[in-house]
Amino acid sequence: MKIQLEQACALLQGAQRVLLLSHQNPDGDTLGSAFALGLALRQLGKQVRLECSDPVPPKYLPILGELPFGAFEPDLIVAVDIADPQLFGKGIAAYRERVDLCIDHHSSNSDYAAHTLVDPGAAANCELIYRVINALGVPIDPQIADCLYLGISTDTGCFRYSNTTAHTHSAAAALIGCGARHALINRLMFETKSHAQIEIERLAMNTIEYHFGARCAVIHVTQEMLQHSGATESELDGLSAKPRQIEGVDVAVTLREKEGGGYKISVRSNAPVDASAICKALGGGGHARAAGCFIRDTLEAAKTRVLQAAAPQLQSSEQE
Amino acid sequence: MKIQLEQACALLQGAQRVLLLSHQNPDGDTLGSAFALGLALRQLGKQVRLECSDPVPPKYLPILGELPFGAFEPDLIVAVDIADPQLFGKGIAAYRERVDLCIDHHSSNSDYAAHTLVDPGAAANCELIYRVINALGVPIDPQIADCLYLGISTDTGCFRYSNTTAHTHSAAAALIGCGARHALINRLMFETKSHAQIEIERLAMNTIEYHFGARCAVIHVTQEMLQHSGATESELDGLSAKPRQIEGVDVAVTLREKEGGGYKISVRSNAPVDASAICKALGGGGHARAAGCFIRDTLEAAKTRVLQAAAPQLQSSEQE
Repeated sequence: MKIQLEQACALLQGAQRVLLLSHQNPDGDTLGSAFALGLALRQLGKQVRLECSDPVPPKYLPILGELPFGAFEPDLIVAVDIADPQLFGKGIAAYRERVDLCIDHHSSNSDYAAHTLVDPGAAANCELIYRVINALGVPIDPQIADCLYLGISTDTGCFRYSNTTAHTHSAAAALIGCGARHALINRLMFETKSHAQIEIERLAMNTIEYHFGARCAVIHVTQEMLQHSGATESELDGLSAKPRQIEGVDVAVTLREKEGGGYKISVRSNAPVDASAICKALGGGGHARAAGCFIRDTLEAAKTRVLQAAAPQLQSSEQE
Repeated sequence: MKIQLEQACALLQGAQRVLLLSHQNPDGDTLGSAFALGLALRQLGKQVRLECSDPVPPKYLPILGELPFGAFEPDLIVAVDIADPQLFGKGIAAYRERVDLCIDHHSSNSDYAAHTLVDPGAAANCELIYRVINALGVPIDPQIADCLYLGISTDTGCFRYSNTTAHTHSAAAALIGCGARHALINRLMFETKSHAQIEIERLAMNTIEYHFGARCAVIHVTQEMLQHSGATESELDGLSAKPRQIEGVDVAVTLREKEGGGYKISVRSNAPVDASAICKALGGGGHARAAGCFIRDTLEAAKTRVLQAAAPQLQSSEQE
C-alpha cells in the first residue's frame, strides 16, 4: 500500500527494534540509505540492525562507518532502495513477505511491502531518506550527512546524469552544510584508480583501432597485458565504457583474453545501435547499450567475427 | 582597489557600453562568466561586447549561444575570471592597464584593475557572477542559466573537487530551476572526447613517471605529440587531472611544451599538498589544489625544477 511521508514517519516512530534491509550486490545508495536511517533511528533511542545478502564492498567502509549489528527480534522491518523482492538475494530471502515498510525511488517498485513510500522523482533513494530524517526531526550529524551524500553522489554519477534535479542539489548543499566530506567521498568513488588500473588502461588504449569510418572503436586486453599490469578482473570494470566516449563512436568493442583461452567480448553502444543484437548473433546477450559474448578463437579471428556481427547494425542505423 | 558586491553593481549599472574580457585559452568559467554577465547587461538595455585573445573552443558553442560583437568605444571595461594581466594574452594586451572592474575568484588576484570584486571562496567565477546578476535584479533566463551552470560545472569537475561548497550546490539548484540544461552540458563537457583528445591522452599517459615514492606523478606533452595527435590547446584541458586520480598520488604534474619553446606546467594536488606554493616558487600561482607556471627550459631541466619545488611540500605534508 502506497503511503505518504508522515505515515512512514509514524511507523518508524512507533517501532522500538528496527531491521533495515539493503539489496543484494549493495551499492552506495542502498547502503547510504540504510546507514543514514539506522543512525537517525538510534538517535531516537531505537535498536537498529542492518542485513544484506552480500558483504559491504570495502571501498564504502571509510565513508559509512559502523552500525551495530544487534541480535533482536524486530518489531519493524524496513527495506530501502529495493524495488522488488527478487533483489533481496538469498541471504535475506526469508524477509521477502515480511516487509512492513519499503522506502524506494524506483518507478518500477512492485509494491510488495505492507506500506510503501516511493518517489520516482528522487534521483537517489538517499534524497528521499534525507526528507524522512528531516520529518523525523533528527538533526543531521556529519556521519549521517556522509551516508546520505554517498548515495546521492553515486546514484547521479556525481550530479552528471539526467536524473539530477534542483532538489538533488539542494539536498547536497544542506548535507555539505551538515559536514558531509564531499570531496573525500567523490575522490574515493570517482577519482581513485590503482596503479594497475592506470597501467592496464594505458596498455589497452594503445591497442585502439577504428573501423567503419571510425564509428566503431576496438580495444583488447591480453593475458600478458593483465599480468604485466597486475590488474584484477574487477579493475577492468570501467574499461569497456572508455572507447564509447570518443566523438562519433557508436559501437565500442573490448576483447579480453580469458585464462583458459578465447576472448570475452564487451560491446557498448550509443543509440540507435543495438549492442545486444550484435552479441546475440555471436551467442551472447545483454541490454541495448551494453552487451557481451564469448568467442573461443584467436584475437584476430575474434575481432573479425565481432566486426562482421556489427556491420548490419551500423548499416541499418545509418539509414535512419 | 577591492570593492564589495554593491559597488560592482553600481559600476555596471552606471555604464552604457560594456566591454567584457575573458582570459587567454578561454575555459568554461571565463566564457560562462562573460556570456552570462553580457546577457544580463543586455537585458538592462546596455551595449555589450566580448573580447578574448583566443577564439571560443567549438565545444562551448552549443551551450553559450551567441553574443553580439558590437563595435563601440566602451565606457566600462570588465575582466572576468582573470587573476593577472599576464593572462590577457596578446590579442587584448592593450586593455591591461585600462580595466575598470575585475570580477574574479582567484586568491592570487593581483588587484590590477581600478576596482576588483574577488571572492576566493567561490568555487567558480560563475558562482560570483550569479550573485552579481541577482544583485542587479536581472531575472535568470534559461540562456543565462546555461552559461552560469557551464562555468560552475567545469570549474568544479562537476562538483567533484574540494572547492565545491554548499553555496555551489545552492547555485546549481537555482540554475536548474531556471532552466539550465545540466545533463546536456555535463555530457558535452565530461563524457565526449575527440579522436585527437583520446590520442593525446594515450601519448601523454605513455610518458608517466613516478617520483617521491610514487606520491608524485609526472606526464608531459611535446609539440611533436600535439602535432601527431592533432589536439588543440583546449583539448588538453582535462589531461592535468588524470595523474592525480592514481591511488597514493598527492601531486600530479603536467608539462606542456609551448610553440615558442619552454613548458607550461600544471600542478594538481590532493590535500594537504599546496599546489600554488609549488608554482609560486617557480614564478606562477593559482589555487591550493590547482596551480600553474611557465618554465623556459628543456623538458628534463623543467622537470627537475618542478620536482625540486615540490620536494618541500611533500616533506612538510608528510610530517602532518
